[in-house]
Amino acid sequence: MREAFQQQLDSITCDLAEICDTVQGSVRLATRALLEGDVQVAEAVISADHQIDRARERVEDTAFSLLSLQQPVAGDLRVVVSALRMVSELERMGDLSVHVAKIARLRVPEVAVPVEARPTVSRMGEVAQDMVRRVSAVITSRDIEDAIELSRDDEEMDHLRRSSFAELLSDDWPHGVEAAVDLALLGRYYERIADHAVSVANRVVFAVTGQLPTNASRG
Amino acid sequence: MREAFQQQLDSITCDLAEICDTVQGSVRLATRALLEGDVQVAEAVISADHQIDRARERVEDTAFSLLSLQQPVAGDLRVVVSALRMVSELERMGDLSVHVAKIARLRVPEVAVPVEARPTVSRMGEVAQDMVRRVSAVITSRDIEDAIELSRDDEEMDHLRRSSFAELLSDDWPHGVEAAVDLALLGRYYERIADHAVSVANRVVFAVTGQLPTNASRG
Repeated sequence: MREAFQQQLDSITCDLAEICDTVQGSVRLATRALLEGDVQVAEAVISADHQIDRARERVEDTAFSLLSLQQPVAGDLRVVVSALRMVSELERMGDLSVHVAKIARLRVPEVAVPVEARPTVSRMGEVAQDMVRRVSAVITSRDIEDAIELSRDDEEMDHLRRSSFAELLSDDWPHGVEAAVDLALLGRYYERIADHAVSVANRVVFAVTGQLPTNASRG
Repeated sequence: MREAFQQQLDSITCDLAEICDTVQGSVRLATRALLEGDVQVAEAVISADHQIDRARERVEDTAFSLLSLQQPVAGDLRVVVSALRMVSELERMGDLSVHVAKIARLRVPEVAVPVEARPTVSRMGEVAQDMVRRVSAVITSRDIEDAIELSRDDEEMDHLRRSSFAELLSDDWPHGVEAAVDLALLGRYYERIADHAVSVANRVVFAVTGQLPTNASRG
């Protein structure tokens, strides 16, 4: 009984880490589609999203059957409950990558992001990817220090978002309303991906310790 | 034992409905702050958000203790697991109202939304409020038909968002980049509030029937 339980718990952890890897790929490809105006890459991100949705259903079903049949308590219960939360955050991160890809697709054969703004957007993509990669590592390692560090590390993303906003709202922004709106929404999408990464990391801390990191919102 | 269990389950449902009411108030006031450029109303929305966060913690703690001590199965388990999901959606709806209020505050003493766009934004606020109100009713009544109807009813919000985008991206938009970006983000925030309302309604259906509505994403 206990062994079967542990196997199901491990399979949830594996699935979560796998979803992270898929999300990381989506963020990378969506950013590429965006910066290169590549419609095929954008389409690939959009059509791959159902894989993340299916993986999420798998995790939810396993977690539900675990709660129902094994009735875990204490730490085990926290792991299962946290997994439910984490998988919905990861699915949202996938959705946000799709939003990025859709902006890319909408502007093809143009590139949605003006040349001057590309370094910032490119860096947003890198930071987002790096956060997803580290979330994946933290899910597997359950390393509290790494999780807490991650939850402090979305400052660079906030900074990038603020500077892209300053750019598009400056009086000498020459690219018009459409490019500004695209850039504002893109900043929002990348920022939300980072927020969700922090939230997943916080849930790992909760699963392991029973407490959320100090000053962490439960968001 | 069973009676204590039922009481805790009822208290979760009550808390969820109460959070809905608070969220509905936040959406209403944030929209008012936005359309009237009223900084005090905006501040009230922003500072009241911690009440929603606390209520969420209460629901999470009750749900966790229920899972841990009472080990519910089948329909009861679905209610508890769904409550965890719903409460995080409701909290996000509160956060999104805060985002709306912050745009209002940022532009005071001006009004962020240009006169021509106010009817659309005002209607977005009404639709969002109405959806939250109906979600609250559905949580209490567990009426599947109403829940499914709600999940089909965010079409008006999609339509409003699309028409506000068309407006701000039209060649004769006279209000510049800042107002366009504000309006685009506002459209996004209201749309997300509606998405979350649909998602909560879908979770009520799941709690009652064990199945999500046909064609509903688990988002």
